[in-house]
Amino acid sequence: MPGWPLWRGGRLWETESMTWEGPKPISRVVEGLSRLPGIGPKTAQRLTYYLLRASREQVGELADALRDLKDNVKLCSTCFNISDQDPCHICTNPRRDQSTICVVEEPLDLVAIERTARFGGVYHVLHGAISPMDGIGPDELRIRPLISRLGPGTKVQEVILATNPNLEGDATAMYITKLVEPLGIKITRLARGLPIGGDLEYADEITLGNAFAGRS
Amino acid sequence: MPGWPLWRGGRLWETESMTWEGPKPISRVVEGLSRLPGIGPKTAQRLTYYLLRASREQVGELADALRDLKDNVKLCSTCFNISDQDPCHICTNPRRDQSTICVVEEPLDLVAIERTARFGGVYHVLHGAISPMDGIGPDELRIRPLISRLGPGTKVQEVILATNPNLEGDATAMYITKLVEPLGIKITRLARGLPIGGDLEYADEITLGNAFAGRS
Repeated sequence: MPGWPLWRGGRLWETESMTWEGPKPISRVVEGLSRLPGIGPKTAQRLTYYLLRASREQVGELADALRDLKDNVKLCSTCFNISDQDPCHICTNPRRDQSTICVVEEPLDLVAIERTARFGGVYHVLHGAISPMDGIGPDELRIRPLISRLGPGTKVQEVILATNPNLEGDATAMYITKLVEPLGIKITRLARGLPIGGDLEYADEITLGNAFAGRS
Repeated sequence: MPGWPLWRGGRLWETESMTWEGPKPISRVVEGLSRLPGIGPKTAQRLTYYLLRASREQVGELADALRDLKDNVKLCSTCFNISDQDPCHICTNPRRDQSTICVVEEPLDLVAIERTARFGGVYHVLHGAISPMDGIGPDELRIRPLISRLGPGTKVQEVILATNPNLEGDATAMYITKLVEPLGIKITRLARGLPIGGDLEYADEITLGNAFAGRS
C-alpha cells in the first residue's frame, strides 16, 4: 500500500465545509435526521443520499410539510387533541356522540382508536400519565379540564378510561375514577384479555390471568 | 357496547381535513416521511408525533436543511462526487495525491473509504454499476469522463477499482480494466478475504475461497 506522506500528518477530510458525511448541506440533513428517535447515523445517511436522488418536488414537499407542522398545528381547547382548528374536527362533528368521552394518554392513542372505527363518541387527551418516578403528577396532565367537562349541566353520561394497560395508566385511571365517581357519571375501562391472533401458549401470565378474571 | 347510529352510516374520520393520521398538517408529514425507503407508515407516524413535540428550532432546521440539500448540492465535474462546490473539496485539496484515482460506484462508497482514513488519493464516482438486467450499460455510468482523466499528459499513475464485490461490480471493474490497460496505467483492486471480527466458521464459501486464493 502506498503511503501518502502529506496525508499522514492529519485528517484529510476535516476541512471547514467537509465532514465524514460529506459536504455541509449533506451533513446538515444527516444530523437533522439522526436526531429523530430510532434513526441512527447510518440510517440518516442512507435517507439523505436517497433524498439527494429524489425529485425536487418530493424534498420540497417534505420541507414545507415540516414547516407547516409547527405553524398550523394546535391543541383543541376542549379535548386537547392535536388539530389544525380549535375546537377540533372531532369535537365539532355533529355526528359524534357528545355524551361519551374516551380518555386517552396521547394523541397517537386516539388515532389508534379512530382506526378501529368502533367508537363514535368524543375524546379527552391527557398528554401523559401519572408517573411519580418521572415527576409527572396529576397537575402536569389535562385532568382538570376533563373534570370541568363533567361539571353541572354536562351532557356526558359515560367516561371510558382508555389509558395504557400498565402501572402509570392504571394509576391515572384510578385517580380519575376517584374524581369522577362523585359526579354520578358512568365510568368504564377497556377490556383486558388475550389479543386477537395471539397464541395462548405465548401470552404472559398477567394477560392470561386477566383473561380468566374477565371471562364471560 | 353502545351503538352510535349516526356514526354507523359512514366513516366518522373521513372529513376533508381529517384522515386516519389526524389533521392535514400531520398527515402531510406522515405521508412525506413514509415515502422514504425503510420508513413504513407506523414509523412515519411515530416520527411525526415526535416532531410535534420537538422544538420549533429543531423542526425548522431540518426543513431548511432539506431545502438546502436540493439547492446547494451539485456533482463535481471532475470526479462526479456530490459536493457543495465544483470542483469538490477532495479534487481541490492540495494534500490529496492526484496520481491515484479510486473508482467507486456510489458517493456513499466514497464516504465509507474516507472514513477508513487509509486513502489519500482522489476519487471517481461512477454513479452505478454495469447491470444489463436493469438496463444499465457503460454509457449510463461516468466511465467516459474517467478515461478522459487518464488521457495524454495525465498525472495519474494508479487506478484502484473499488467497485462492489458482486456480479455488477466485477463486470464494471472488468470493463474499465479493458479500457485502462492499453493506457499503461497501473490497475489494482481491493483485497478480498475474511472480514475483520468475522468468524471463519460463519464465512460464506466464496469469501472463504477468496481468502484462500489471496493468502500471503
